[in-house]
Amino acid sequence: MKSKQNNDFASAVAFSHFLLKQHLTSGDAAVDATAGNGHDTKFIAELVGDQGQVYAFDIQQSAIENSKQLLIKNKLNSQVQLIKASHADLDYYIKDNIKAAVFNLGYLPGGDKSIITRADSTIIAVKKLLKLIKQGGIVILVIYSGHPGGSQEKTKVLNYVSQLNCHEYNVLSYKFLNQPGPPPEIAAIKKR
Amino acid sequence: MKSKQNNDFASAVAFSHFLLKQHLTSGDAAVDATAGNGHDTKFIAELVGDQGQVYAFDIQQSAIENSKQLLIKNKLNSQVQLIKASHADLDYYIKDNIKAAVFNLGYLPGGDKSIITRADSTIIAVKKLLKLIKQGGIVILVIYSGHPGGSQEKTKVLNYVSQLNCHEYNVLSYKFLNQPGPPPEIAAIKKR
Repeated sequence: MKSKQNNDFASAVAFSHFLLKQHLTSGDAAVDATAGNGHDTKFIAELVGDQGQVYAFDIQQSAIENSKQLLIKNKLNSQVQLIKASHADLDYYIKDNIKAAVFNLGYLPGGDKSIITRADSTIIAVKKLLKLIKQGGIVILVIYSGHPGGSQEKTKVLNYVSQLNCHEYNVLSYKFLNQPGPPPEIAAIKKR
Repeated sequence: MKSKQNNDFASAVAFSHFLLKQHLTSGDAAVDATAGNGHDTKFIAELVGDQGQVYAFDIQQSAIENSKQLLIKNKLNSQVQLIKASHADLDYYIKDNIKAAVFNLGYLPGGDKSIITRADSTIIAVKKLLKLIKQGGIVILVIYSGHPGGSQEKTKVLNYVSQLNCHEYNVLSYKFLNQPGPPPEIAAIKKR
């Protein structure tokens, strides 16, 4: 018998991967704004292939190291630039037009839980990405909000994306209504 | 060049079809709680095939007629029971275990706009369906709320589904945050 978990709808993380898969193809340029332990960077690097380009940001050395090891192990390091910097400065590093970008908001799993993403720098990074993404391109925010400060960041970020010009952007919300935690949810922006 | 519309994320209706396709297969029993002009009934009838069973409800004779014509034209009438009754009474007609059910809340497109679905009977119907659906089965609500009374129905229905027991049901919301109208949105319940 299937586990209870398997009877659920696709989680926010699974849905973010579904969107990335739908939008990225070989040769594309993409951004992982929060490299963390490198799982999304790896996923994106596979989608864009060795003709593509992934810009992966993290402010923590341990995140850059963990991501680097994961990429080398999977022979995906050639198409990834791991950048130890805030995603708020991403325009300094990225010159390509981007097809997709993903954020995991919160703290580094297994790392220092006091180091968290914050609404102000998240919103700066999103604004910069909106200038870099192609028509039809997407910016995905996977929002974890169960940690201290998470709920405030979520409120500010959702408020910002909800006010984006409806003629220029299509903003989607994917979330669970009755689950405790709360589980992560998605806000995704698509350039019209 | 693609139209602006084509650069958007899947609409609520397209996402409801995606979920139906993911959950229904040949031989399943399913419900269209608001047959309307028969478009969802047709879509579901194709998915369950002639070994399946679709129960399609509508209180308006014109909706039953329009749906009947559409099904006959597409040779799908053998697997569909068109029932002129309120979905609030669906347990009187359905004896099978259901794999998926769909509601389109609002008024009949092209029909009398004063005849609308209402929160009380919608919630009664959802409660009855939750007893009939199989483990892993779904109830999808496509919520139109731009018409008079629509916003009140939406508030009540979302309040009801948000309070469903998290151990028994997984409740998903799929909606657009920055579009005027407002465009339809989805609340979907999956039995764990």
